[in-house]
Amino acid sequence: MIAPTNSMGPVDNTRSLRSALRALPYRAVEITGGFWARYQETNRTMSLPHGFAMLEEAGNLRNLRIAAGMEEGAFAGFLFADSDIYKWLEAVAWELGRSPDATLQAMADTAIGLVQAAQEEEGYLDSYYQIAAPAARWTNFDHGHELYCAGHLIQAAIAFHRALDDDRLLAVALRFVDHIEEMFGPGRRDETCGHPEIEMALVELFRVTGEARHLALAQLFVDRRGRNRMGGHAGYGPVYQQDHVPVREANEVAGHAVRQLYLTTGVTDLYMERGEHALMDAMLRLWADMTQRKLYVTGGIGSRFDGESFGAPYELPADTCYCETCAAIASLMWNWRLLLVTGHSRYADLFERTLYNGVLSSPGLEGASYLYVNPLHVRAGRYVRASTDNARGNVATRPAWHSCACCPPNVMRILSSLNHYLATASSTGIQVHQYAASRLDLSLDGKAAVVEMETGYPWDGEIALTVRETPAMRWSLALRVPAWCRGYAVTLNGNAITPHRDESGYLVLDREWRAGDALVLTLEMQPAFIMPNPRVDAVRGCVAVERGPLVYCVESHDQPAGVDLLDVQVATAGPLETVPVDLLGNPLIAIRLSGRADGAWQDALYRPLDAISQAAPCSVPLTAIPYFAWGNRGMDSMRVWSPQAPAG
Amino acid sequence: MIAPTNSMGPVDNTRSLRSALRALPYRAVEITGGFWARYQETNRTMSLPHGFAMLEEAGNLRNLRIAAGMEEGAFAGFLFADSDIYKWLEAVAWELGRSPDATLQAMADTAIGLVQAAQEEEGYLDSYYQIAAPAARWTNFDHGHELYCAGHLIQAAIAFHRALDDDRLLAVALRFVDHIEEMFGPGRRDETCGHPEIEMALVELFRVTGEARHLALAQLFVDRRGRNRMGGHAGYGPVYQQDHVPVREANEVAGHAVRQLYLTTGVTDLYMERGEHALMDAMLRLWADMTQRKLYVTGGIGSRFDGESFGAPYELPADTCYCETCAAIASLMWNWRLLLVTGHSRYADLFERTLYNGVLSSPGLEGASYLYVNPLHVRAGRYVRASTDNARGNVATRPAWHSCACCPPNVMRILSSLNHYLATASSTGIQVHQYAASRLDLSLDGKAAVVEMETGYPWDGEIALTVRETPAMRWSLALRVPAWCRGYAVTLNGNAITPHRDESGYLVLDREWRAGDALVLTLEMQPAFIMPNPRVDAVRGCVAVERGPLVYCVESHDQPAGVDLLDVQVATAGPLETVPVDLLGNPLIAIRLSGRADGAWQDALYRPLDAISQAAPCSVPLTAIPYFAWGNRGMDSMRVWSPQAPAG
Repeated sequence: MIAPTNSMGPVDNTRSLRSALRALPYRAVEITGGFWARYQETNRTMSLPHGFAMLEEAGNLRNLRIAAGMEEGAFAGFLFADSDIYKWLEAVAWELGRSPDATLQAMADTAIGLVQAAQEEEGYLDSYYQIAAPAARWTNFDHGHELYCAGHLIQAAIAFHRALDDDRLLAVALRFVDHIEEMFGPGRRDETCGHPEIEMALVELFRVTGEARHLALAQLFVDRRGRNRMGGHAGYGPVYQQDHVPVREANEVAGHAVRQLYLTTGVTDLYMERGEHALMDAMLRLWADMTQRKLYVTGGIGSRFDGESFGAPYELPADTCYCETCAAIASLMWNWRLLLVTGHSRYADLFERTLYNGVLSSPGLEGASYLYVNPLHVRAGRYVRASTDNARGNVATRPAWHSCACCPPNVMRILSSLNHYLATASSTGIQVHQYAASRLDLSLDGKAAVVEMETGYPWDGEIALTVRETPAMRWSLALRVPAWCRGYAVTLNGNAITPHRDESGYLVLDREWRAGDALVLTLEMQPAFIMPNPRVDAVRGCVAVERGPLVYCVESHDQPAGVDLLDVQVATAGPLETVPVDLLGNPLIAIRLSGRADGAWQDALYRPLDAISQAAPCSVPLTAIPYFAWGNRGMDSMRVWSPQAPAG
Repeated sequence: MIAPTNSMGPVDNTRSLRSALRALPYRAVEITGGFWARYQETNRTMSLPHGFAMLEEAGNLRNLRIAAGMEEGAFAGFLFADSDIYKWLEAVAWELGRSPDATLQAMADTAIGLVQAAQEEEGYLDSYYQIAAPAARWTNFDHGHELYCAGHLIQAAIAFHRALDDDRLLAVALRFVDHIEEMFGPGRRDETCGHPEIEMALVELFRVTGEARHLALAQLFVDRRGRNRMGGHAGYGPVYQQDHVPVREANEVAGHAVRQLYLTTGVTDLYMERGEHALMDAMLRLWADMTQRKLYVTGGIGSRFDGESFGAPYELPADTCYCETCAAIASLMWNWRLLLVTGHSRYADLFERTLYNGVLSSPGLEGASYLYVNPLHVRAGRYVRASTDNARGNVATRPAWHSCACCPPNVMRILSSLNHYLATASSTGIQVHQYAASRLDLSLDGKAAVVEMETGYPWDGEIALTVRETPAMRWSLALRVPAWCRGYAVTLNGNAITPHRDESGYLVLDREWRAGDALVLTLEMQPAFIMPNPRVDAVRGCVAVERGPLVYCVESHDQPAGVDLLDVQVATAGPLETVPVDLLGNPLIAIRLSGRADGAWQDALYRPLDAISQAAPCSVPLTAIPYFAWGNRGMDSMRVWSPQAPAG
């Protein structure tokens, strides 16, 4: 019944009906060094063990033991606590698939054993309902999260299946899915889950099993949305629950940002398998609405704490923004699928922006602490709203864990599977979407093709690709020119060339490659000031600094004594100078600029326009660091958007 | 035991220990025409009957009938529903005290009868607990609102006592207060209420009864705050409940804005009676924090929907602001008491700003609809967040009532008692704080003094005062020069004079007045652009327009076709021209200015600074109307703060 291990990564669209590009086998791409290798190593050696310890400490694993009858006690945590374990398991699977580790394997075996033990005879598995509310099983669709947890179980199971040929979790998942189908399949209970997730999981399960009923069930759960039935329980209304409009009729991203984008991710998966154009048309409308009206410059999404939700168009406050880490990760998942469908670089561009800024701001540089909320402006000390645990208080550093711990293991599974997202194949060749020191080892027309990529990206714009092995045939190598890039140069074996840039935004080099061919793409990486649309009231008159894929911020630690970021204004006529620095052992490139900090107004809130005197000259040296690195030296004040000093 | 009817208004500080100024007897000041007479008439003839009908429809009155055993049924509404009735009763008392009305009297008698009937033998009275949760009586101090409701009962009772010599409600209130004292008096249960209100009510009751125990109980309820015991129930924490810091140690206004300012109002009352400087010092610190860091230009307060609360310093978004009507009314109450204590015009200035803008934006011009939330920026149609009932939705017009109906009857009682707040007396004379066509009829040194004020304020800056009667003695007439005023002229009997402006901001005319003396104060009323402190990120680069005490706004209805307020920028170099207009039968002065509306950015959220092209000339004629009048022609888009077009 189950297809043999295919060593694919999180998304296997190799047999999908609608896809411009095909995901590569999981082991086809290896990150070999540089920026992302360091993150993957920290994730493997620090974050995953830390996560296991936290899942024990917070009671998630104990919940399973209680459900399995191995311990007595009360359920701990939020009712979706099981999903934290599943996401952590998925992350471990991708890591163990890359190379074994006895400690991680033992932790995974413990968790898998508990999952197996907790499952009921009929297939049901959800420790909250098993322990705390057996009578409420399958009654609370608004907020119950049962199908949501099932979805994460399925994804973890698929990861163990693909990365390790370990089908212990898959057996559990399939039994649970059978039970779910009995309850909610065609002609059965006409319900779905307030938190989308099961949709993408079932499509992926179909890609593993090839069973049409798994895909049909995903479609059912998509089609059941939009009837305004949900929202009574949690008090957030049907928009929060993604039940306010049928998917095919949706024109705007709305409500809980994670729910919205987990749904669009599943719908895009469904489109790939079934090809229903009405679904894809809706996805393109939603993507346009999100990127043109509701997107932070970091790639973050979700303007409001209230309902963890999207705001109104152009409602993008820098200080009270939510920008949940999980929402940024959802955006990665969705943009990856849109890229596979369309082959257009705009989705890889947003993937890159979101990865380096919106997601990477979550983990501390040491790999054992996480932000849940990712603000773009923090005022001194006490007003950090960087964790839901502290929504009305403040945090001095990234918390080691969160009572609602959805984000940390989500970061872990993205980092451990990051190689999956670097490159794809099409019928004509290979496409490189994200630049990292890596090795691509795949087969073209049944013959080995090996390409090595060397780069200091994201600090350096030079990307050197060397063809190590190739079949004797013509094939194309497509390289993304990022949207932020203002100029680039290409050499082939030392000679400048001007390859065609296709309508999808890729430089396409179509030739009969030979082993030893050396292609160098050099992307200009001059720092630049970025301006917001004047409709974005919250940051009107402000500028941000970007360099390459990185959004920068000014943090209080790096500024001259006495400079209050509340009052800082930056000179946009002056130069932006790059300077290598070390931040807690992490080499990075900072940017020097100049500005002024004028606190003369501090006692008056409002004044007549003609009473304002001329301001001081912009003689204060300021330093910006990559936004992802903020808050690692204690959270004081920080801003991505700084007011622009008036000219003259 | 009870002092005879003294015909005082809401606050009687005539015998207080600490007061620079003394409130006048309720009937000493009569509003005789013009702007506020029209509002008082609408309030009397439209709003009060409408309110009674709504209190019946929403179930508030029925709750009392059920509690009294006159009907069967379930409690309806929020648990503080009784307080809506009490505030409505207070408003009716001030109206009936001005002149009788059989219909209003009958409504009041009905309500009073139900209040009497619902009270229990032991004095307890709170229909929610009597009907729905008898076992929970005096258990839920965070959110129970029992003492809050008691406070409003006391205030209504005092109004009937002072305005009408009707002590039916006072008898009910005193029985309830005796019961409260038994429960919470010295040495009894060490609790207080999550929602301040009882404090100011008990101080005022002391002013009626002269009984020290009423004042002592108020003090106890103040002293019991700040021990971080509250906040578990509602989930908002001790800041929301005003329990996070002892009053004497407070440095910042924080938490639920209404709770914060009802507390400071009661504390200022307590200071007036007992003179404890530590209390007044705290009040001055809180006032400075509020006015320098947390105040909207309309006088509105409360930046966040989340917890109906103050935001961080300078967190003053124009679109997602809360600015609850009740919070603005609380600010009136507090500033009035601070004015009485200090005699400084800054408190009368803020009273004026808040009254004309922050409070007056709530009622519809017709007097039968109300805003709960008062945003300073509303985007087209669907994103109006102008009611808590619609916090996640939208309203097309002001709602006729709200499920949480605290604001409408609060507006009613302020309008019906507005004469109370126009003027005061001191040992040396009379002070006029607010300008309105009115008659001041009081006694100086036991002899009649009558002053008539004629003015077209707030549309016109000329205020003509005529002394109609006066004792043969020297006394001073002090006139406030508003903070917004850039120039003024004074004539006495036709001759220009230059009276002394004292350190409190008043023009003081100290002389032996004679009947017929005619004093004319002319305040310059040129419209002006106002700029926010650069720390207010939300409206950086924007300007507002003010004229006299009125804040203006641009509303979509008044702009040329095709102009989207999302994209409007105003030219600040151009003229501001006043023009009389009629808005639904209401004469008012609009302001014409020019600007442009450039939607060229609409498809991009962020662009490199150097990619921005020059903008169009400011050739679009725009019209601003007083902010209080917005939203009466359907709620479309509106903004108080508009981006300033770059010069050139």
